Amino acid sequence: MIITVTPNPALDVTYPVPRLTPGSSHRVQTPRRRAGGKGFNVASVLAGLGRRALALGIVGGETGSAFEADLLSRRLDHRLVHIATPTRSSVAITDDQHGATLFNEVGEPVPEQAWQALTSILIEELPGAECVCVCGSFAPGVPRGWTAQIVRACRQAGVPVVLDVAGPQLMDALSAGPDLVKPNVREAVETVGIVDPARSAELLVSYGADAAIVSDGERGLITVTSDGGRWCARPGETVAGNPTGAGDALTAALATALAAGPGVDWPQALRTAVSWSAAAVQAPVAGEVDPADVERFAAGVRVQQCELEKVC
Amino acid sequence: MIITVTPNPALDVTYPVPRLTPGSSHRVQTPRRRAGGKGFNVASVLAGLGRRALALGIVGGETGSAFEADLLSRRLDHRLVHIATPTRSSVAITDDQHGATLFNEVGEPVPEQAWQALTSILIEELPGAECVCVCGSFAPGVPRGWTAQIVRACRQAGVPVVLDVAGPQLMDALSAGPDLVKPNVREAVETVGIVDPARSAELLVSYGADAAIVSDGERGLITVTSDGGRWCARPGETVAGNPTGAGDALTAALATALAAGPGVDWPQALRTAVSWSAAAVQAPVAGEVDPADVERFAAGVRVQQCELEKVC
Repeated sequence: MIITVTPNPALDVTYPVPRLTPGSSHRVQTPRRRAGGKGFNVASVLAGLGRRALALGIVGGETGSAFEADLLSRRLDHRLVHIATPTRSSVAITDDQHGATLFNEVGEPVPEQAWQALTSILIEELPGAECVCVCGSFAPGVPRGWTAQIVRACRQAGVPVVLDVAGPQLMDALSAGPDLVKPNVREAVETVGIVDPARSAELLVSYGADAAIVSDGERGLITVTSDGGRWCARPGETVAGNPTGAGDALTAALATALAAGPGVDWPQALRTAVSWSAAAVQAPVAGEVDPADVERFAAGVRVQQCELEKVC
Repeated sequence: MIITVTPNPALDVTYPVPRLTPGSSHRVQTPRRRAGGKGFNVASVLAGLGRRALALGIVGGETGSAFEADLLSRRLDHRLVHIATPTRSSVAITDDQHGATLFNEVGEPVPEQAWQALTSILIEELPGAECVCVCGSFAPGVPRGWTAQIVRACRQAGVPVVLDVAGPQLMDALSAGPDLVKPNVREAVETVGIVDPARSAELLVSYGADAAIVSDGERGLITVTSDGGRWCARPGETVAGNPTGAGDALTAALATALAAGPGVDWPQALRTAVSWSAAAVQAPVAGEVDPADVERFAAGVRVQQCELEKVC
């Protein structure tokens, strides 16, 4: 079982319009309101490809009830901490001309007991876990050192842990020794202040991560490991579609590789990860990939060992 | 007591952004989700200016719960029909450059029993009513002749009725003899197919309304009554601000005039209506007017008798 932890989930609301025209009125159909947030998308990708996943998170209010109802209707295994503060929403306006125009609520502060409750649920579930992914942003009020504490708990239980978080929370947790961190280029800048993806990955490992993967959209991934491994991986073709959720499919694939036990076969893991991510771009909503797309893209993925100084 | 009936209420969600940029991501604060829909705004204006108002409507789902919670927190008197179908949302993105960019959900079909239940509540409350306003759009599935039935029930009880509805529902209800109809220019076109506001008002009266007011933004109002009265009214100054809710303040003022008993003093009623409407433009949200603004604008309103052929 792979466990995902989403400290700041969001109810995703999507309005497709023929054309977004600022300053005017648009008539829209009732949207499906979908349980979102990175860890829930990761769990959804895993479940869709037949892996067992358990999604943990903090939800509240009327939006939290709608969130939970969607998880139930999608039969996604979950354990939630319930608070009074409403779960945030993320609104996407989609049209052919602009793609997605997003309005992401920052989220309201979460009380300290909720963080403790989330930690407790995770610790209870750790004996059955093969890998843990901590994903996404943090609501205001996250206790100092919370992510580092989660990493330590996982290491103590012998369960590999992937951090798909960025900024101060990632920086703070590196010294606890996460098995893998995977910011995109923008998040890497936010964390270590360096634009070059290979340099960022190197730095993240030097700060304590066992492996770091920095993704750069369709330019692919740079991977650096603490035992001196360096790989570049990218899709064999340009994939058109909706990039929302591509990073979550990447996390899902990498968690699956880590869950298989020590001694990750990185070239194989990266090939799988790039193909899941490309398949996610082709899927209409985040958290879904079509196994046929995965297979098709896997054949084209190029993985090569590379030198730090050289962009592949 | 003035009763408002809102067949298709909406939960209003507003995201202020520094600048709306199609195709990009915007970080937004948690919005206040507010009970909206024309009749609820009318009731809110009335309550804010010290008049007794009761708002009736049909709500459902998680959004309906949020809707009701907001009514309770604003202490707006209400009686609601509860259904399983979720209440629609209306999303407004506001920025300085474009004003409001609106995404109005059309709404889901409402079961026939809900329409009957709404009618029953209204009929129960009619003995205590001084005026009834039926306001806004209709969810799909409204029974044929429903609005006309409401008009007849009010007339039978001797209670004046204002229709702030448009299109087929308005056309269908005219022969039942509503005391006042008040489409804006666009809604008048949708109903009788005529762009000229004076001609539209004349036609609406010829079809059965006792009085018709067609509003044309800051160009003001054209009023035609069945006993040959014709007035133009407009604000004394251009009012900058948020026009959402200006029509609802107009309805609230006109309902107050009709509630005072037969023999409406139209010049006085129009002066009040234009000043409430102008004050609503200056208010930050729909359903609120500042009494000081009302007083300030009232002094400037120009009302004059006019001929049908002549635009004032």
